[in-house]
Amino acid sequence: MSDSKAIQKHLELKGKIETGLKVELTPENLALLYTPGVGEASMMVKNQPDSANQLTIKGNTIAVVSDGSAVLGLGNIGGQAALPVMEGKAMLFKALADVNAFPICLDTQDSEEIIKTVINIAPNFAGINLEDISAPRCYEIEQRLQAELDIPVMHDDQHATAIIILAGLINATKVVGKDLLKAKIVIIGAGPAGYATTKLLKHYGINDIAVCDSKGVITQNREGLDQYKKEISTDKYDKPTTAEEASKGADIIIGLSRAGAITDTMVRSASAGPIVFALANPVPEIMPELAKEAGAKVIATGRSDFPNQLNNVLVFPGIFKGMVENNIKSVTPQIKIKTAEAIASIIEKPTVTNIIPSVFDPKVATTVAKSLE
Amino acid sequence: MSDSKAIQKHLELKGKIETGLKVELTPENLALLYTPGVGEASMMVKNQPDSANQLTIKGNTIAVVSDGSAVLGLGNIGGQAALPVMEGKAMLFKALADVNAFPICLDTQDSEEIIKTVINIAPNFAGINLEDISAPRCYEIEQRLQAELDIPVMHDDQHATAIIILAGLINATKVVGKDLLKAKIVIIGAGPAGYATTKLLKHYGINDIAVCDSKGVITQNREGLDQYKKEISTDKYDKPTTAEEASKGADIIIGLSRAGAITDTMVRSASAGPIVFALANPVPEIMPELAKEAGAKVIATGRSDFPNQLNNVLVFPGIFKGMVENNIKSVTPQIKIKTAEAIASIIEKPTVTNIIPSVFDPKVATTVAKSLE
Repeated sequence: MSDSKAIQKHLELKGKIETGLKVELTPENLALLYTPGVGEASMMVKNQPDSANQLTIKGNTIAVVSDGSAVLGLGNIGGQAALPVMEGKAMLFKALADVNAFPICLDTQDSEEIIKTVINIAPNFAGINLEDISAPRCYEIEQRLQAELDIPVMHDDQHATAIIILAGLINATKVVGKDLLKAKIVIIGAGPAGYATTKLLKHYGINDIAVCDSKGVITQNREGLDQYKKEISTDKYDKPTTAEEASKGADIIIGLSRAGAITDTMVRSASAGPIVFALANPVPEIMPELAKEAGAKVIATGRSDFPNQLNNVLVFPGIFKGMVENNIKSVTPQIKIKTAEAIASIIEKPTVTNIIPSVFDPKVATTVAKSLE
Repeated sequence: MSDSKAIQKHLELKGKIETGLKVELTPENLALLYTPGVGEASMMVKNQPDSANQLTIKGNTIAVVSDGSAVLGLGNIGGQAALPVMEGKAMLFKALADVNAFPICLDTQDSEEIIKTVINIAPNFAGINLEDISAPRCYEIEQRLQAELDIPVMHDDQHATAIIILAGLINATKVVGKDLLKAKIVIIGAGPAGYATTKLLKHYGINDIAVCDSKGVITQNREGLDQYKKEISTDKYDKPTTAEEASKGADIIIGLSRAGAITDTMVRSASAGPIVFALANPVPEIMPELAKEAGAKVIATGRSDFPNQLNNVLVFPGIFKGMVENNIKSVTPQIKIKTAEAIASIIEKPTVTNIIPSVFDPKVATTVAKSLE
C-alpha cells in the first residue's frame, strides 16, 4: 500500500460518509417534517421520550466515540487525528449492517470530561461505541457511561475482540475435536482486549485460563495488581511463572500483544495440535508459517492476507444492529455470547482454514442481529 | 395539517437524514480507507491538523446544536424533544446546500457544560450552528464558543433572522423608493432576533432604530438594562416612549415578537406606505390583510402562505456553505452583510409581492456561497 494511494483516496472522498436525505424536499414534506409539522413530533417526544426511537434518527444511530488516546498501531494521536479511523468505522456500520453511525472525536482526554460530554450528547444516539481509548481509563469510562445511560455502551477494543475470539474458538475447537469448556488456555497480553477476552471466556464457562503480561502469568498472589488485573488473575500457579512455562500443554494460545510475543518453542511445548490465535496487527505475535511448522493445527490472525481473519468488523455492526432493533439497553455477557455463537454458526463445517466468515459476508450482521431477538 | 399526517411521516421515515456511504465497500477500499491505509490519513492529520478538512468529513460537516431551551413556538422542551427540529435543519443543510449536518441535541441546559461539550466535540465539525437556545444564555454561549474555536459559530435564531431581514429590507426599500440607510426603523421585540437584527442594521449603516420590548422603546437612560439591551438602546428619546409613539412617521416596522404586537393604528401613524415585516410564527404580529388596509406598502411574514416569506432557511445553508468552502473562521458583520446582499440580489426586479427568493430556489445557497469567496 503506497502512502499516496490511501491519502489520494481520502483526498478524493473528503469524508467516507455523508448525511443522506431519506426523502425529497418538497413543499409538502417541508411542512410535515419542518415547520409547522415538526412541532407535533417534538411534543410527542417531550411527552413520551421513548417515541424518539420511532420518530427520529435516535432509534438507529450509533456514536463512534474516541479520544484518540490508543489508536491501533499509532498510539496516542489525539481525537482529531483519530477521525479518519472513526469515520471508517461509521462507514462499516452502514455498509455492513445498515446502521447509521457518526464519529465523535473528542478534544479532551480527561475521563470525567469524556463521560460528561458523552452523556450530554446521548439524546441523539441509540448506542455508544467507544473506540481506541487507553487502559485503564477505558474500563471506568465504559462502566460509568453504561451505568448512567439507558442505551448500550460498548468499548469495541475490549468486547468486539473478545466476541470474535470466542466465535473463532467455538469453531476451532470443533476442527481439532476438543471441548472448549475444558481447554487449557494461555492469553498473552493483558490490555483491554486480553482483559475482556478473559472475562468473556470465563462467563462462557472456561476455567483454565492463564493471562500473561510482560512479567509473566498474572497470578493471584502477585503484588501490585490493579483491580482489573486482579479480576483476570489465576490461582493455578502460586509462584512466578513465565508465559513459556504456562504454554506447556496448552490447548489454545491467544496473542493480544505484539510481534514476537509467541515463540515457536511455546507452540512446540503446547498440547498436540494446538490452536494459535496471533492477533497483533499488522505483525502477528507469531507468523502463521512458523506456528504451523511448530505444530499449530488451527491458526488465526487479524490480517486479511492469511486464512481465518479475526476482525472486530465481524462484530460491531451486527451486535449494535441487534441491540438497536431489539431495544437492548446494555451489553451483557449473554448478549456477547449469543453474538459469538451467531458468528460461529455461519460456518457450517469449520475447517483448518475456515473457522470464521469473511468480513464482507452480508449474512454476518443479519445473523447476529437475529440471534439477539 | 392534521396531527396524524406529520407524525405518520415521521414514523414512516424514522429519521429525516441517515449516514450515506460515499464509496462502495470493496476489499480495495477497505484497505485504503480502513486498515491499513487509514493510518496514513491519521498520521497526516496528526502532523498537519488542517489536513483534516481535506481528508475527512470535518471539512464539510456542520453541527446543529441545541439544548431545546427555546424551541420556536414550543418553548423549553429540552434537548431530546428538540431532535426532530434539529434533524429537520440537518436535512435542509443537505437538501439546499449539499452541506453535511448532524444534530447534536444536548442533555444539559447549563451554559458552562454546553460550552465544554461543544468544544470537546468540535474536532468533527467545520462549523457550529447553535439553535433554539434561550436568551440571554445564547449570547454568552455563542461568544465564548466563537472565541475558543477556530471554526465559525453562529446562533441561527439571531443572525440568520437578522440577515434575512436585511436582505428583505434592501429589496423592500427599492420597491418603495426609499434610502434604507436613512430610514426610520422601529423593531418590536428585543429577544435574540431583535438584538442581532438591530446590531446588523447598525453595522450596515442605519442609525435611526428604536427597539421596543414589553416596556416600550429601550432608551439609553432606562434603568435596569442588561448589557445586551444597553447595546441596542437609543438616545433618540430621553423619556419613556411607547412602541405606538415610536411608530409615528416610521418608514419600517419590524415585528419579532408575538401575534398582536403591531396594531393597525401603528401602521396608520407611520410614514406614507411603510414597510411592515411581521415575522412571528405561526401568527404574525399583524395579519397582512390588516397591515395592507392600514396602508402598508410592502409586507413580509415568516409564513409560506403569504407573499414575501422571510425564513431562516434562506440563510443558514448558504452562509455555512460559503464559510466552509472559503475557510472562513468566524461570522463577522461583513460576512452577514455580504450574505444579505447576495440573497437580495437574486430578485432582479423586486415588487410589492416579490422581495425575496423562494426557500426552494436552488440559486440561493450557491449565490450566497459565491459571494463569500
